[in-house]
Amino acid sequence: MAQQPSNPSSKLTKGSPDRFTGDVWVDYMVNDTINDFLVSKVFFEPNARSNWHSHLGKQIIMAIDGEGYYKEKGKPVKKLKKGDVVVIEPGTTHSHGSINSNKFTQAVMMNGITKKDATTWLNKVTEEELKE
Amino acid sequence: MAQQPSNPSSKLTKGSPDRFTGDVWVDYMVNDTINDFLVSKVFFEPNARSNWHSHLGKQIIMAIDGEGYYKEKGKPVKKLKKGDVVVIEPGTTHSHGSINSNKFTQAVMMNGITKKDATTWLNKVTEEELKE
Repeated sequence: MAQQPSNPSSKLTKGSPDRFTGDVWVDYMVNDTINDFLVSKVFFEPNARSNWHSHLGKQIIMAIDGEGYYKEKGKPVKKLKKGDVVVIEPGTTHSHGSINSNKFTQAVMMNGITKKDATTWLNKVTEEELKE
Repeated sequence: MAQQPSNPSSKLTKGSPDRFTGDVWVDYMVNDTINDFLVSKVFFEPNARSNWHSHLGKQIIMAIDGEGYYKEKGKPVKKLKKGDVVVIEPGTTHSHGSINSNKFTQAVMMNGITKKDATTWLNKVTEEELKE
């Protein structure tokens, strides 16, 4: 079983409802402030997604299980399955999440983590926006 | 000091001379055989580089310090500096390394790690090939 169970272990951090819709868990695997890069694994339960947000650094996503999406504000939803990679340029307003009843797990690599306000969190993503 | 010193700590693995030219150190940060992804940090001393090689999985590189290169067999050298990202498709014969007297540090994220012969190692990269 590659997917994290719905009742995850205590090493995972629950995504804040201020930043996510539905149940999202984050495993912070590397937080390297010397070389300025972070690696995490993010588990999205069905119908779970991030709010719109942007990063000061560059973020790379690799889909590692389930089915999910990546969407930039005003652009079409990009569906992601195992092995798909997205490079997100600094300052790009975007959202990640699962698709409908699927779970989704993504690995994340990011720099720019030591800057103040490294991530700016914005509004929730509506169901209607996901249909655009 | 963002660069790893030339005399690295014991948690680093020295790159084998069968696979690398010069001094290369690897810090294996994540080896997730459940979700099938690996994260490492690779330190290239000046004039150090990998042999030609290819992976069964997809590999993503993010340059995090110094100056280095990425080169696919038969293609021009691509210089890398902090923040540059390269997505390497499965089966692509390539090499990474530092440029001349510079050190280079890269973060690596890769899948396909649980397969047999996940990486195929080939010949050394010559000085002449780096000028192509």
